[in-house]
Amino acid sequence: MTVKNDFEDILMGRRSVKVFDPEVKIPHEEMDEIIRKATKAPSSINMQPWRFVVVESEEGKDKLRPLVQFNTRQNDTSAAMIVIFGDMLNYEYAEDIYGAAVEQGYMPQEIKDDLVGRFVEMYKQLTPAQMNDIVKVDSSLAAMQLMLVARQYGYDTNPIGGFDHASIAETFGLDPERYVPVVIVAIGKGMEEGKRTSRLPVEKIRSYH
Amino acid sequence: MTVKNDFEDILMGRRSVKVFDPEVKIPHEEMDEIIRKATKAPSSINMQPWRFVVVESEEGKDKLRPLVQFNTRQNDTSAAMIVIFGDMLNYEYAEDIYGAAVEQGYMPQEIKDDLVGRFVEMYKQLTPAQMNDIVKVDSSLAAMQLMLVARQYGYDTNPIGGFDHASIAETFGLDPERYVPVVIVAIGKGMEEGKRTSRLPVEKIRSYH
Repeated sequence: MTVKNDFEDILMGRRSVKVFDPEVKIPHEEMDEIIRKATKAPSSINMQPWRFVVVESEEGKDKLRPLVQFNTRQNDTSAAMIVIFGDMLNYEYAEDIYGAAVEQGYMPQEIKDDLVGRFVEMYKQLTPAQMNDIVKVDSSLAAMQLMLVARQYGYDTNPIGGFDHASIAETFGLDPERYVPVVIVAIGKGMEEGKRTSRLPVEKIRSYH
Repeated sequence: MTVKNDFEDILMGRRSVKVFDPEVKIPHEEMDEIIRKATKAPSSINMQPWRFVVVESEEGKDKLRPLVQFNTRQNDTSAAMIVIFGDMLNYEYAEDIYGAAVEQGYMPQEIKDDLVGRFVEMYKQLTPAQMNDIVKVDSSLAAMQLMLVARQYGYDTNPIGGFDHASIAETFGLDPERYVPVVIVAIGKGMEEGKRTSRLPVEKIRSYH
């Protein structure tokens, strides 16, 4: 259930929280809603390469624990650890995505046929490094929205980049060549305030041309 | 000036807009405010690797035009094309970032000295591919917030991944080894509604464990 809708507060008040109330779980219906909103994020040629592995059970967390060495508190107390992967074969869903756009009246059939053909051809020609970049950028856009939407629903989050990237796909039965890990978002009801952190002054990080 | 603050509307109503009112420019003070809020995004060990090259002048856009072949409309009509780079030597700012945290009372000096030492050591040992992943993920988190904050200020955006990645750093006088391009965000006062696009059903993109 959404508990706040104040954009300024949701965005500016977000802080990484590392200890959660272990009693609080997130119902699947609500989690699906949060993910659905997160994936309103844009993606390159709308290919939506983000995939969410929601680790919430005792068994799942036992599997994840050795992979998140410096972040076991989050693993132990969060409602879920959402492991976000990028799908290197995302274009296999091109027909689904653009077919739905035609059904929903967003795009004429002829345009769709032309686009899907060209987009799939283009994506197949990318090097693995180029596709890796694309799926990481796109999946991160959705990850940021996920962290903000979580606050709309009264939850806190902590994005985790430090984990065993090499073995996490296989740990959850995924092909590591196809699914590249992007970030883990721990989510739950925060039991602490979250530390304040500094930001570089804007003058140091932007230039006008 | 902020014109809306409704989170649900800002998030769910965002669509990519590709034609802007060419008469509308964004004052630097306001642009700085938008960037400042965008960079409240989290980043790996708070190293804030995002760098914003705001291309807004005739001369700047002339330089950018040949690099954004399929997106010249946005280049010609937007208030600015914000080219977001990831700084591969981001840890050179570690002292600035953590020093400010001490000054602002967020962290004791001893903790800061210990952390900066360990973090810089750790980051220096990463391979270029690992650092590339980190700066792309982190910078994308800020990019997503930028697109949402833009709506708070009454602007529309279009994220652009298709541009000449190889030559964009040098075009704006940056060392291409140090600054890797992440995404361009066109920003301005939209002159069209923005097309609706479909999303994959949540059941196809998430699993519970």
